[in-house]
Amino acid sequence: MILALAGGVGGARLARGLAAVLPPEKLTIAVNTGDDFEHLGLLVCPDIDTVCYTLAGINNPAQGWGLDGESWAFMDALAALGGENWFNLGDRDLATHVLRTSLAGTHSLSHITAMLAGRMGIAHSIVPMSDDRVRTIVDTDEGELPFQLYFVRRRAEPIFRGIRFDGIAAARPSAGLLDAIDDPALDAIILCPSNPVLSIAPILALPGIRARLAERGVPIVAVSPFIGGRAIKGPAAKIMGEIGIATTPSGLASYYDGLLDGIVIDRTDADAVANGTALYVTDTLMHGGDDQKRLAAETLAFAYSLR
Amino acid sequence: MILALAGGVGGARLARGLAAVLPPEKLTIAVNTGDDFEHLGLLVCPDIDTVCYTLAGINNPAQGWGLDGESWAFMDALAALGGENWFNLGDRDLATHVLRTSLAGTHSLSHITAMLAGRMGIAHSIVPMSDDRVRTIVDTDEGELPFQLYFVRRRAEPIFRGIRFDGIAAARPSAGLLDAIDDPALDAIILCPSNPVLSIAPILALPGIRARLAERGVPIVAVSPFIGGRAIKGPAAKIMGEIGIATTPSGLASYYDGLLDGIVIDRTDADAVANGTALYVTDTLMHGGDDQKRLAAETLAFAYSLR
Repeated sequence: MILALAGGVGGARLARGLAAVLPPEKLTIAVNTGDDFEHLGLLVCPDIDTVCYTLAGINNPAQGWGLDGESWAFMDALAALGGENWFNLGDRDLATHVLRTSLAGTHSLSHITAMLAGRMGIAHSIVPMSDDRVRTIVDTDEGELPFQLYFVRRRAEPIFRGIRFDGIAAARPSAGLLDAIDDPALDAIILCPSNPVLSIAPILALPGIRARLAERGVPIVAVSPFIGGRAIKGPAAKIMGEIGIATTPSGLASYYDGLLDGIVIDRTDADAVANGTALYVTDTLMHGGDDQKRLAAETLAFAYSLR
Repeated sequence: MILALAGGVGGARLARGLAAVLPPEKLTIAVNTGDDFEHLGLLVCPDIDTVCYTLAGINNPAQGWGLDGESWAFMDALAALGGENWFNLGDRDLATHVLRTSLAGTHSLSHITAMLAGRMGIAHSIVPMSDDRVRTIVDTDEGELPFQLYFVRRRAEPIFRGIRFDGIAAARPSAGLLDAIDDPALDAIILCPSNPVLSIAPILALPGIRARLAERGVPIVAVSPFIGGRAIKGPAAKIMGEIGIATTPSGLASYYDGLLDGIVIDRTDADAVANGTALYVTDTLMHGGDDQKRLAAETLAFAYSLR
């Protein structure tokens, strides 16, 4: 049994690869909810949606978020009415947000996510990291900004100084995440190539989770989101540079501070060292389903080799 | 100054005619909110939207509700996710509902309606009958049904036995409605050709409103929604038949129980009498903007003749 921790695009891609090589009962994907936000009265969960859409094969692969073949009549009408239109909500994507919001008063996010994923034809378990409200707040040179204001509205341009996860101290890890950690059959924990600071850190920051993972006694392997010091997508390299963490295998090992048993890195970084953390070198750029499957299989084999 | 009371399609058409012949400061259109409902967590106000879309000239004239050139990607996606899809929400229409719902926690329905109408380019005053929650409940042979369940989901098929307006006793008429009634310049009150039982009755049932209109001392003129005993659109004739009210000028006069000074009726009903209520005979079927304008002008002239 494998537990994968994931955020947005890169994480979703590896998660799809893992789902392609593991049967449904052998994989739990726990997803960051720190990026979630309330927008126009709707509960939007960008990372959960990216993982669900990607696993369902209905995502827009070029764009990295949202649905393939999406239409934008709602956004056009919203703009005409003077509504806030800095966050794009496609017509079809909107069904996810409206349905989730309508259920959120009476059902847990775990329940809603399982229902929506099931309706999308996904057999594997996708669980939010928590059913409680956690909201990532970024401290910048322009002051504190709620995550989506920083990330989407301000295009991650303000200088990143630090981060906090509002609500984290009171947030209980979801039952799905805890069950996966405690599963006697758990073989390894995979940190998907999502942004370490924005996507993986909130999951690890849940009360007790980091210690519980470290003490679990199974290999913990991260797939690096960096190639040659650059992030494949998104502002991870900019952010890590701004808080003084090298976007290298050793920087990653330091950032996770002893949690990792191994790191999967790209051939570009083949000469890297990582303070004694085992490294596995391969092609980490995922162009499509075959790459996702191959990288997932190699990552699993590497993790099993570390047992 | 003219106060028009309106519900859905027929009311919206005459309201558009009135807006075409009266300057913005000379007309207030007070709209039924008994049909409003919460659907998928969204506050939907069908009559307000029909009036706004019609006055803005962006309505679908053939369909009688919704927007012209509407698309349905949201509904398709919602159905795929297993969401309730008995009430159609077009992609562009949805912007109205989402924006209204997002503002409803902090702004009155009057304020939101004025803002949305303004954004649609409407200069005339469209006011909800009340900012407080009123919900029409229909008593049928299948038991009590919230209005939209009866009207849309059950297509008005159950036998209509009676009606009540949940929340009406505590509902305060909107400031816009009260201001129009109390305006010293008020010349006449027009009851648009909307369903008397479903659309006009809730407005009249607001605490004090019926008496206030009757005592105002200006002509009250209804435009009949019936031609030859049939409703132009919708279930008005079926409903009035089921509660034993004739769909004739005299039936209408009886239903409004002395409130009316005059009724505008169709040529088809030229031979009708109405218990002493003045009748004005013309073509009441509105095929388009020219008919709306003509009928509005004739109705106003008739009302002024009754002063």
